[in-house]
Amino acid sequence: MSFHRHELPNGLEIIAELNPRAYSTALGFFVRAGSRDETEAVSGVSHFLEHMAFKGNDRFTPDDVNRIFDELGAQYNAATSEEMTLYYAAILPEYLPKTFELLANLLTPALRTEDFDTEKQVILEEIGMYDDMPAFAILEKAMESHFAGHPLCQSVLGSVGTVSALTVDQMRAYFKDRYRAGNILLAAAGNIDWQQLVELAEKHCGSWAAGRPDRAIAEAQPQANKLLLQKDLKQQHVVQMAPAPSATDTLRFAADIVSVVVGDDSGSRLYWDLVDPGIVESADLTYSDYEGSGVWSTYLCSNPDTASENLARIAEIYNDVNRSSITFEELEQARNKVASRIVLSGERPMGRLSSLGGNWMYRKEYRTIEDDLADLRAVSLEDVRELLDKYPLGQTTVAGIGPLTEL
Amino acid sequence: MSFHRHELPNGLEIIAELNPRAYSTALGFFVRAGSRDETEAVSGVSHFLEHMAFKGNDRFTPDDVNRIFDELGAQYNAATSEEMTLYYAAILPEYLPKTFELLANLLTPALRTEDFDTEKQVILEEIGMYDDMPAFAILEKAMESHFAGHPLCQSVLGSVGTVSALTVDQMRAYFKDRYRAGNILLAAAGNIDWQQLVELAEKHCGSWAAGRPDRAIAEAQPQANKLLLQKDLKQQHVVQMAPAPSATDTLRFAADIVSVVVGDDSGSRLYWDLVDPGIVESADLTYSDYEGSGVWSTYLCSNPDTASENLARIAEIYNDVNRSSITFEELEQARNKVASRIVLSGERPMGRLSSLGGNWMYRKEYRTIEDDLADLRAVSLEDVRELLDKYPLGQTTVAGIGPLTEL
Repeated sequence: MSFHRHELPNGLEIIAELNPRAYSTALGFFVRAGSRDETEAVSGVSHFLEHMAFKGNDRFTPDDVNRIFDELGAQYNAATSEEMTLYYAAILPEYLPKTFELLANLLTPALRTEDFDTEKQVILEEIGMYDDMPAFAILEKAMESHFAGHPLCQSVLGSVGTVSALTVDQMRAYFKDRYRAGNILLAAAGNIDWQQLVELAEKHCGSWAAGRPDRAIAEAQPQANKLLLQKDLKQQHVVQMAPAPSATDTLRFAADIVSVVVGDDSGSRLYWDLVDPGIVESADLTYSDYEGSGVWSTYLCSNPDTASENLARIAEIYNDVNRSSITFEELEQARNKVASRIVLSGERPMGRLSSLGGNWMYRKEYRTIEDDLADLRAVSLEDVRELLDKYPLGQTTVAGIGPLTEL
Repeated sequence: MSFHRHELPNGLEIIAELNPRAYSTALGFFVRAGSRDETEAVSGVSHFLEHMAFKGNDRFTPDDVNRIFDELGAQYNAATSEEMTLYYAAILPEYLPKTFELLANLLTPALRTEDFDTEKQVILEEIGMYDDMPAFAILEKAMESHFAGHPLCQSVLGSVGTVSALTVDQMRAYFKDRYRAGNILLAAAGNIDWQQLVELAEKHCGSWAAGRPDRAIAEAQPQANKLLLQKDLKQQHVVQMAPAPSATDTLRFAADIVSVVVGDDSGSRLYWDLVDPGIVESADLTYSDYEGSGVWSTYLCSNPDTASENLARIAEIYNDVNRSSITFEELEQARNKVASRIVLSGERPMGRLSSLGGNWMYRKEYRTIEDDLADLRAVSLEDVRELLDKYPLGQTTVAGIGPLTEL
């Protein structure tokens, strides 16, 4: 394994972890453009733009894009989050030049008015589809409520209202602002010729506009907030949020451990207390880290009649952890679980790519699997204590969807 | 990479592909027991038995099984098909002894009457759930109809009737017959100490009963058959089947190519002709190989009003292929696609495990990724011609579910 970095004159950063023993190559463009970079007026534009990328440009028609990726046998896709839009492909090493050209062209889409109008309907259907999935819908509502007044409150999909009202000119302006070379990272992992990768980047990305737009990253200061949406469902879904360490906080390793011990979807305190005995359908605790802010996120899905007492039981469990921390045995077991996940997900270039890109986007840091395992092993009960003092498990924001009118 | 094989005195075969550079270990028990080994009276027993394996025995309680796998951070599961029941786990190499002990104990379940009665309800719910999924339900019906009178006609899940009527004594008898050492393959891939693996097998599997029960593997001789289930659905779902090469036929490589060219779910003739222009919701062609028999399986999901003309269009496409074969360009492109899939799926020990186990179960053959790629490259237009003469694409059996009463 070796790590390389290069920067083009226009500011595009290129990083790669070379593994000559790998059978495949994974590469991706990480664009620092997500819903937190949107104003309310253009809410949903990052995600909509990701769809438009696959509509091609003067060089490749939409059919070309799908046909060529398909002929290469590429596993490819794109994804948009609060902080990032990612375009990626995993391929056989010999197809790097063709795949690179195609991926790079996705980032210079034509943004034709006709395609925009057609794709808008697809996006609106997607919003409708997610609205029908209560666990997803309530998570978005909880984010909105928890981060009210802060950029992280913006929904990734946007709403029917904002997407309907969006114009192609607004999208073009957003594109021009965010898709600049200094705001994009090209990362690659696996079996790669580094020199060839740099040359391909010079050829296909060298003329991209320079620049790096700002992003507001002050830590959020959420106020306690409660929101209940009534819907004719059999189960009550509740999401609760509280502040947690940000993506640059070294306490994030301890936060990973605590979320596994307390709220992993199997074998955790919430699991043995509520899920395994069949008291609730689901109960878990997730830790999510963003630039400048972080979130403890609790999800409960249960019979409406017992939702309140289940939330009270979760509060008891959290209070106990905040007060007495976790045991050394729990720390050890969680370390094993997380270590296995790191190793199993990092075995393929595609798995390494997301770790590589994430570490660089958030921390300008290259980390090997061994680095991750070493930091995991180094987490002590003292770190956990410090974490719980600074970011206690909590239920500051409450958002629910289901039959209940009170909670 | 190196390959090893050993057989215990009771007939348990052990094979492993050692890759000292891998970060993880995958291991699995492949039991030659599936729905084709069932009589109609015990239809569904193989799959039900797979569930019962996780109920533990005198050594491990059901809670132990889940808790220990979880603590090890194992990715583990089991699956039942027409021909096989597979129990597997992917882990960090240092957890091999504990994981092995636990996996081996799954294969000597207590089969307690109380657990049997409880789990029967879970199975019945699972059958109900799949009944609600038309694409799945109609595939089972098509198999039943296509293989009428042949063991492959048995449903993997069984029916509400057969599962309800099944007794724990029938399951115990089936277990005693099929779960004998000579009928089980232990396969492992990745970072493994071969000597340790053999010793673990001796310790935990050495006392398993010997023997290898028979299986009827005569090639099926399906008659044309039509079956229409009426259901209040928006779309009409149709599955059509025709004979194809078996798992030991060397024409299977050409069959893989033809299914990709004609009916892959993207970039195939069916895709460009029917799916991409939005004429149908889905249309694909799959090739499935079994011991002694094989199947071309066409799936169509479309508006009921146009279902008949869509099937006629598929027939035209098939007739054209049967008559004029595929082009050299199509052969080349399909080779690229399949090669990428072989490589990308074989990069992790877990991916290698299923290839390793499948090749051994069906053909007592060890094949590297390079062997697979070489055979793929060797497929010629002459092979494709021979295949289409012997096993033309066809629509012998027709099974439909949806609003139509005629088709």
